[in-house]
Amino acid sequence: MDAKSAPATQSIPQRDLANAIRALAMDAVEAAKSGHPGMPMGMADVATVLFQRHLKFDAAQPDWPDRDRFVLSAGHGSMLIYALLHLTGYPEMTLEELKNFRQWGSKTAGHPEFGHAPGIETTTGPLGQGLANAVGMALAERILNARFGDDLVDHHTYVIAGDGCLMEGISHEAISLAGHLKLNKLIVLFDDNGISIDGAVSLSCSDDQLARFAASGWATARVDGHDPEAVSAAIEAAKKSDRPSLIACRTVIGYGAPNKAGSSSSHGSPLGKDEIAGAREKLGWSHAPFDIPAPIRAAWAEIGRRGTSAAAAWAKRLESNAQKAEFTRVMAGELPANFAEVVGDLKSAIAKDAPKIATRQSSQLALDSLVPAMPELIGGSADLTGSNNTKAKTAKPVQAGAYGGSYIYYGIREHGMAAAMNGMALHGGIIPFGGTFLVFTDYCRPAIRLSALMKQRVVYVMTHDSIGLGEDGPTHQPVEHLAALRAIPNLLVFRPCDTMETAECWALALSNKERPSVLALTRQALPLLRADAASANHCARGAYVIRPTQKERKVTLLATGSEVEIAVEAQKQLEEKGIGTAVVSMPSWELFEEQSAAYMQEVLGSGLRVAVEAAASFGWERYIGSDGIFIGMKGFGASAPIADLYKNFGITPAAIVQAVTAKL
Amino acid sequence: MDAKSAPATQSIPQRDLANAIRALAMDAVEAAKSGHPGMPMGMADVATVLFQRHLKFDAAQPDWPDRDRFVLSAGHGSMLIYALLHLTGYPEMTLEELKNFRQWGSKTAGHPEFGHAPGIETTTGPLGQGLANAVGMALAERILNARFGDDLVDHHTYVIAGDGCLMEGISHEAISLAGHLKLNKLIVLFDDNGISIDGAVSLSCSDDQLARFAASGWATARVDGHDPEAVSAAIEAAKKSDRPSLIACRTVIGYGAPNKAGSSSSHGSPLGKDEIAGAREKLGWSHAPFDIPAPIRAAWAEIGRRGTSAAAAWAKRLESNAQKAEFTRVMAGELPANFAEVVGDLKSAIAKDAPKIATRQSSQLALDSLVPAMPELIGGSADLTGSNNTKAKTAKPVQAGAYGGSYIYYGIREHGMAAAMNGMALHGGIIPFGGTFLVFTDYCRPAIRLSALMKQRVVYVMTHDSIGLGEDGPTHQPVEHLAALRAIPNLLVFRPCDTMETAECWALALSNKERPSVLALTRQALPLLRADAASANHCARGAYVIRPTQKERKVTLLATGSEVEIAVEAQKQLEEKGIGTAVVSMPSWELFEEQSAAYMQEVLGSGLRVAVEAAASFGWERYIGSDGIFIGMKGFGASAPIADLYKNFGITPAAIVQAVTAKL
Repeated sequence: MDAKSAPATQSIPQRDLANAIRALAMDAVEAAKSGHPGMPMGMADVATVLFQRHLKFDAAQPDWPDRDRFVLSAGHGSMLIYALLHLTGYPEMTLEELKNFRQWGSKTAGHPEFGHAPGIETTTGPLGQGLANAVGMALAERILNARFGDDLVDHHTYVIAGDGCLMEGISHEAISLAGHLKLNKLIVLFDDNGISIDGAVSLSCSDDQLARFAASGWATARVDGHDPEAVSAAIEAAKKSDRPSLIACRTVIGYGAPNKAGSSSSHGSPLGKDEIAGAREKLGWSHAPFDIPAPIRAAWAEIGRRGTSAAAAWAKRLESNAQKAEFTRVMAGELPANFAEVVGDLKSAIAKDAPKIATRQSSQLALDSLVPAMPELIGGSADLTGSNNTKAKTAKPVQAGAYGGSYIYYGIREHGMAAAMNGMALHGGIIPFGGTFLVFTDYCRPAIRLSALMKQRVVYVMTHDSIGLGEDGPTHQPVEHLAALRAIPNLLVFRPCDTMETAECWALALSNKERPSVLALTRQALPLLRADAASANHCARGAYVIRPTQKERKVTLLATGSEVEIAVEAQKQLEEKGIGTAVVSMPSWELFEEQSAAYMQEVLGSGLRVAVEAAASFGWERYIGSDGIFIGMKGFGASAPIADLYKNFGITPAAIVQAVTAKL
Repeated sequence: MDAKSAPATQSIPQRDLANAIRALAMDAVEAAKSGHPGMPMGMADVATVLFQRHLKFDAAQPDWPDRDRFVLSAGHGSMLIYALLHLTGYPEMTLEELKNFRQWGSKTAGHPEFGHAPGIETTTGPLGQGLANAVGMALAERILNARFGDDLVDHHTYVIAGDGCLMEGISHEAISLAGHLKLNKLIVLFDDNGISIDGAVSLSCSDDQLARFAASGWATARVDGHDPEAVSAAIEAAKKSDRPSLIACRTVIGYGAPNKAGSSSSHGSPLGKDEIAGAREKLGWSHAPFDIPAPIRAAWAEIGRRGTSAAAAWAKRLESNAQKAEFTRVMAGELPANFAEVVGDLKSAIAKDAPKIATRQSSQLALDSLVPAMPELIGGSADLTGSNNTKAKTAKPVQAGAYGGSYIYYGIREHGMAAAMNGMALHGGIIPFGGTFLVFTDYCRPAIRLSALMKQRVVYVMTHDSIGLGEDGPTHQPVEHLAALRAIPNLLVFRPCDTMETAECWALALSNKERPSVLALTRQALPLLRADAASANHCARGAYVIRPTQKERKVTLLATGSEVEIAVEAQKQLEEKGIGTAVVSMPSWELFEEQSAAYMQEVLGSGLRVAVEAAASFGWERYIGSDGIFIGMKGFGASAPIADLYKNFGITPAAIVQAVTAKL
């Protein structure tokens, strides 16, 4: 599998192999009347060298756990990966799909979409994300290697990134983290073509990228991206490095296009009929659109089979490996057999101890039970470990050269953390969770969105979830964030009201294989409102009556998290006034929306509905209707002790009672 | 004003001046029982040198336009700036305020809040933002210098940043942009204390910060942050540099605290009584809490008057400057006298030409009128100039060493762009606008939030605002973004439906001095739906009946942007079926919410309400009620040509008609 073993495909000139990619890219973009031909044409040589000589893969087994990961971070160049998958013989990536590039229902979306076809390791397009995903993949590889050994886990992660990826802020977080952790099996091929959409990169950027990566502890090299031997030698050297590697590949964007090569005009639009004809001539590629001559096709197919024997040898090793069952389980993303038992024991202990603690501490309690039972749970925090309560008692840190721990000090890198967690989840074998303050979901929102879009089980532990954090003030107090997160499709947003609900929400987050979760947790202590450990997971229905009324139900108080306690106190006062009041805890709107209409109606009640949440009202009209009452925030928060904030912003039992009695 | 002029305050040892800061920080945090003493104590020496010898300011005139800007990017160290403002005699920053640190209603919030007191140049706390704001301020200085000359504009921007600021991704975008633009009057003092919340910085970061900044074109130096002469000499050298400067100041966090200095335990909590007593002893500071001896107080007051004569000389120069009126106008943020006329002419031209163009192109039309009339309008794009249509015909680029243009190639740096725009707006003299795709509001969301929190007039030109962008697919198609933006307090979100509304929304964005705006604009062409140029600005009411019914009104279609055209077509079909239907265009929910209840009721109608928006329904229940209909997106988008997307996602006149007739 090293560069020295002469590939049988040497009978076909490397140039022809690369030109097959170029032609497919030009033709597919032209057929779609939209797309990005410049990048695939520029990086065709580099990608050919990678697939032909270095990438460990077997096209027939795209899910081989020990394959090298290939991430096209510059996702707009999607035709590059589609062409590679097609030519090497990956399942599902037929010529028909290439001809249907960017059409409704095709697997060949404008940007590579994870789940559309085997071989697409992650969804890319929002720049910089793929690079940061790859850091997570490379980290997952090291963590699993420490757990399962070289026999089962020993592979590289390759990234193709462009100037856009490297200009994005997330790239700094990603490369800094990778350098710190010495992820030496991460190799980035930088498409150094000097062109961005607005024109020459020099119009907006003067960074010395090699020096920049070196400053973060990377090995760096610069090569001519159209010189296969130079590219291959650089990759070979990178594989031997003790640090992550950047290989800046000087390329010509739109390589081969007679007039548009080397200019931004080849970046994001079809080349046009004449330019394509000119490119065919210049490249010496006389074949019709989408036509790949049999010998070239055969050579690429052979490349697709390069890893067959290595995969077979690996499968043999797995068979005889003592950890086979456990490896298979975690790679399949299955929960351990005793998961329900662990959660049950946790709930019993909670019911018994009735702790009055912040839900961030409740989360720590849950982790103290779950982490020892689930070695695949890899936690961390963006430099708020003590505040987020993300480090389970038994968790040891993951460090450069010592990857056997289960806790990552992500540093002050929320966005990089979130995107790395996506990469770990995509890699498989790991369920990542990571913490910061809820307000800083804004800092990692693009990656949270991708967790949801890619259906990845990533758990965001977001503490200090309201004005309840107190003195740090409006910059740190989330107000609109619950609404903004609830608006993201496929994301579960949990806001538990006590330790019991927190345990249940953790269980739900881990049980939902195809959804990411946000746990919104308090800084402040909350009493235990439920001690019914033996009952089913109430949070699974999203919302439920936590305190029924003994009278005729006139009012329903809908609350989440820390405001459930306030609603319960208001209920008491209202009932004393003879007003039948039920309290509903709504830890997850998303799960509630999936219940039957009858159940929803039963929970919401037919009387006056009052929502209580120390956040913006945005979205609550769905449940309180036009006649309901909202008790919460009207604008940004303020810096003061918690009691003053709740009082001054009018989120108190008295305010609820007053609003209700004024309305009835 | 240079370092050589011996300050009269030399009679007081520099150490005592710095200790006054340390004592106030310790005491205020202790009194508040919350806060961050470590940073102010560590950086007291550096800050003292800066204020005593370099910073150009006059405490009595905090708004002096040509003052140096001082940005505390590491905003958690807020007591540093509060102590400095108090000691130098800024108005409003009384000792009482310091004693009320972090209390309800005080000016001394947990993090520095712009607008709370003179001398706070920007709101900081979310890490990295201040650094990026400062890039915008330094850029604003150069742009205004090019316009008004050295006599009126010639000042530095100083930043104190910590490890957190430098680990955040936004720092990369900020330093890369500053280096590229050679903003040599930007000087960053890095509090290089080696400590973050989780412990030693070495736990999570191994970056060579000096090498990293150098790679982005900065001058760099490292000094002992407790050696005043070394710090001063480094600042002096930085002032002479032709590049922005980083001065890494090696400091001891919590300097003076006998046990907690140099450890993360001094970072974010009160030191405690005993530790404070020990620090007083160690520092040789025997004075009572909040007690500053008269000689030290006098020395600091003298520092506060250092700039008095320079400010007076400046005022004299302004008096005799030919551009006085214009300079005064733009610094006051007033629109030009002919603003209404320019907008009126634009609207007349639109009515006459009736263009069928994308609203991003409509925005370009507006800019082609507005930019020549408003030299303070400084535009740009995050490498999507041609797609965002942000470059007015007459706009010339701002480049390193040639700052006289009005257009900034921000590069692929959405977050850095947004935060720099905040800095430009805060600096004054500039109304910044910048573009990217609407989906990438996620990439700059923390800065958008701060625009809103700080009440800054920043205009976000966000194009490709729905699935209507077509083939680029779900990663590029905003779905939840309108909701997520509407949830942010004080932010105006505009989604105009045609060229006329786009002109009106631009006029509103520019007229609202204390609110940022997002303009959500289409990629696809839209017909002109209104040709009533002479009328008032309809968009000013947020929503209005754009197509009344001639029959009895049974149905109201509420739509925004590109979906108004669809609603108008649906109206036609419904009216043909005898169903009286009005169409409401809702370009801004926020402005609509400010109208009278009667007007709102009149617009919304009493019949069936149907919302039509190619986005998530989240929030629309406010207007359609529990019985209304929503026509829009239920999940993420897809990659396909626009017509296929609208058809397959059921956002068509036929779908509206079907839903309405099924309901009635």
